[in-house]
Amino acid sequence: MRRRRRSLLPFAVAALAILGMGADGGGVDANVFIAIAVMLAAAKLFGDLFERLSLPPVLGELFAGIVLGNLDLLGFGGLHFIEHDPQLELLAELGVVLLLFQVGLESNLAQMAKVGASAFVVAVVGVILPMAMGYGLHAVLVPDRTWHTHLFIGAVLSATSVGITARVFKDLGKIDSPTGRVVLGAAVIDDVLGLIVLAVVTGVVEAAETGGSLDVVSVSILVAKAIGFLGLAILLGRPVSSRLYKMASALRVKHVLLAASLAFCLVISWFAHLVGLATIVGAFAAGLVLDEVVFQDLQSREMRRLEEMLEPLAELLTPMFFVLTGAKVDLAAFGNIDALALAGALTVAAIIGKQACSLVAFGPGVHKTSVGLGMIPRGEVGLIFAAVGLKLNLGGQPVISDTTYAAIVLMVMFTTMVTPPVLAWSLRRAGGETPAAGPPDEAESLT
Amino acid sequence: MRRRRRSLLPFAVAALAILGMGADGGGVDANVFIAIAVMLAAAKLFGDLFERLSLPPVLGELFAGIVLGNLDLLGFGGLHFIEHDPQLELLAELGVVLLLFQVGLESNLAQMAKVGASAFVVAVVGVILPMAMGYGLHAVLVPDRTWHTHLFIGAVLSATSVGITARVFKDLGKIDSPTGRVVLGAAVIDDVLGLIVLAVVTGVVEAAETGGSLDVVSVSILVAKAIGFLGLAILLGRPVSSRLYKMASALRVKHVLLAASLAFCLVISWFAHLVGLATIVGAFAAGLVLDEVVFQDLQSREMRRLEEMLEPLAELLTPMFFVLTGAKVDLAAFGNIDALALAGALTVAAIIGKQACSLVAFGPGVHKTSVGLGMIPRGEVGLIFAAVGLKLNLGGQPVISDTTYAAIVLMVMFTTMVTPPVLAWSLRRAGGETPAAGPPDEAESLT
Repeated sequence: MRRRRRSLLPFAVAALAILGMGADGGGVDANVFIAIAVMLAAAKLFGDLFERLSLPPVLGELFAGIVLGNLDLLGFGGLHFIEHDPQLELLAELGVVLLLFQVGLESNLAQMAKVGASAFVVAVVGVILPMAMGYGLHAVLVPDRTWHTHLFIGAVLSATSVGITARVFKDLGKIDSPTGRVVLGAAVIDDVLGLIVLAVVTGVVEAAETGGSLDVVSVSILVAKAIGFLGLAILLGRPVSSRLYKMASALRVKHVLLAASLAFCLVISWFAHLVGLATIVGAFAAGLVLDEVVFQDLQSREMRRLEEMLEPLAELLTPMFFVLTGAKVDLAAFGNIDALALAGALTVAAIIGKQACSLVAFGPGVHKTSVGLGMIPRGEVGLIFAAVGLKLNLGGQPVISDTTYAAIVLMVMFTTMVTPPVLAWSLRRAGGETPAAGPPDEAESLT
Repeated sequence: MRRRRRSLLPFAVAALAILGMGADGGGVDANVFIAIAVMLAAAKLFGDLFERLSLPPVLGELFAGIVLGNLDLLGFGGLHFIEHDPQLELLAELGVVLLLFQVGLESNLAQMAKVGASAFVVAVVGVILPMAMGYGLHAVLVPDRTWHTHLFIGAVLSATSVGITARVFKDLGKIDSPTGRVVLGAAVIDDVLGLIVLAVVTGVVEAAETGGSLDVVSVSILVAKAIGFLGLAILLGRPVSSRLYKMASALRVKHVLLAASLAFCLVISWFAHLVGLATIVGAFAAGLVLDEVVFQDLQSREMRRLEEMLEPLAELLTPMFFVLTGAKVDLAAFGNIDALALAGALTVAAIIGKQACSLVAFGPGVHKTSVGLGMIPRGEVGLIFAAVGLKLNLGGQPVISDTTYAAIVLMVMFTTMVTPPVLAWSLRRAGGETPAAGPPDEAESLT
């Protein structure tokens, strides 16, 4: 067994040598192949490492990207092209669109109505307070940037990660507890609010770039467009999708369900882009309005569930997004004391800002402290915001500078890393919610 | 019900109007989204139409591409960009790599050994004769092109489509008959031979382009490289892949099987490119050497079969290849009587060239006529060759001109379309092979 393990070394050396070769000669296409293979492998290796450390694998994928994107610090520039390759960008963008489509499919309007008022209040407070704190903090710490950047930082701090929060509650077996339902409902509403905020902030920045200024009318139009898009999606989503799937059912050719669903998702994403929203808002809306009822005929005919078919696509494409997001982090920025200070300040604001949620959460059996803690992770949505900011230009420079981007990624990593252990501890102390553990009166003792 | 049907019209009009809008404004990214959605929808719609006409859906996808790529003839240029968009090209290339990986996974070395000598002889004859006929015919009909193009045309005529042939035998319930096994075995060997031929021809053309000439030594090196690559893949494939999956099994993170398999496929494809072969040769080899035994631990742990997970990926990506292949056909070329004449001549050569296979096929219960007919479809492999030729330049012009490309696509469509009904008729006449139908002595009466 020992000899076998050691014999892997030559493979690793050969692999590195080949990587070096590939970087020099050869067509771009084949290099993209090796880039995808390396990104997938690195995502799984670091995902495994983080899993072993009881941290979410998504952080591992991010970390894998940071490593791959900064190999040039070790003198290896062969994979440097991945950061800006348009073909890989498309895969990454399809990956994040697919992720939001999946999240949308998991949520539905009825579910959101059920958790109701409590989740809504938690969500609104969880958006407003971190946004104000983010704006204020950035304005004090980096006074030489315009208010657009402050606003963007505020927006980055507003979003909660449905994925990571859901995962933590699921791992702890608490996804169906009152606390779990409030936090998940709030996280979903937060996503929608956050995406509207992103649309407005992006619109304001784009208006400023083309010489415009903060104009109440155009902001109102933007908000109206965003709400109108979501409203139309909610109103028309069901009839349009049921017609689409009825037409698709009439086709005799095999494998129609996945193609129809992907086309639906991509068209709605493109519609969102058309009205000035991010494509991911459209993807989320497409998933939200799609109800299993409209395609269950096709599902039973093809004998495969839509979500099961999306899974392999997501397994290929979604890591592309997280690895690429990580690859854009310039580690050299961390040599800058400002970036570290900013990262620390943002992390504190991100954590404190969401604790106000615990004050407004209500409902029988809801553990208030855990609600506040459950809202902490920023995860993928925060990263999506940061990625948008990096691409958005104002006065010739990006709204989010490399230093700020690095600080945001650090904040996202920290908030996501700190949540699982702290939330697990808090939920265990509030064990009264589940019949088996601890006395019920302990449940509220921490608030 | 009537009113409902009619109310779809406004949707269609709106969709077209929106397509027009999308073409004018908006970022490229969102246009790629709508292009993917339209390509998927068109692939399914035309796939359904061809299915209803009892023709293979893959032809429908090709036809969908021809329609989308030639909409500018109707004055609609909004989707013209798809023909040369590098992002869509990557999706198409991943699609064809995935297809060959799947075909490779379905075949295995033991299977190929079993059908043995008969399949090998059929395969060799089925490569040499069509190649000679293609070369000769093209040299006579288009004497002003260099012999490189003649050679390429010969190579295009040599390949048999495993996918379409397998599909036809499967639909007729004859996949396990002696005839079916010989034809499938020969088609698989043909693929490997064809891909070696493609590598050699491509190498010769590339050498000529850089000022070299037909050099026995360099052709030998190319053949040696190709055979060496396949030999190494066969020798090292099993130990390397079993080690890879053993390492992957040690990872605790979820969903490792698909990522590891895709990474394996992409790395081998890239290796093939490195030794001068097409990436698809690598993908086929990767599938061929991968044996379910090495990953069955992971399969049972993840409770999903690898081939089931590849299916959704192929459903998204493979139609991209066929639609894009069709989109590159310039219908205006068919106004040219030369293209039509060439298409006719190539089709005749393609059909007659493979009938020699029926003379050399042997074995108990093998229906010789059906072997010859079963070898006719050129399908995806012929299209892959044509696509390579279109990209290959010699003396400033592509080896395969637009006219020739159009003729090749027409030939592929015709050979693929004609096979299912003719083969079905032949197999039914030879019904003696199956216990239930017809007297056994009728089996050889057609040869």
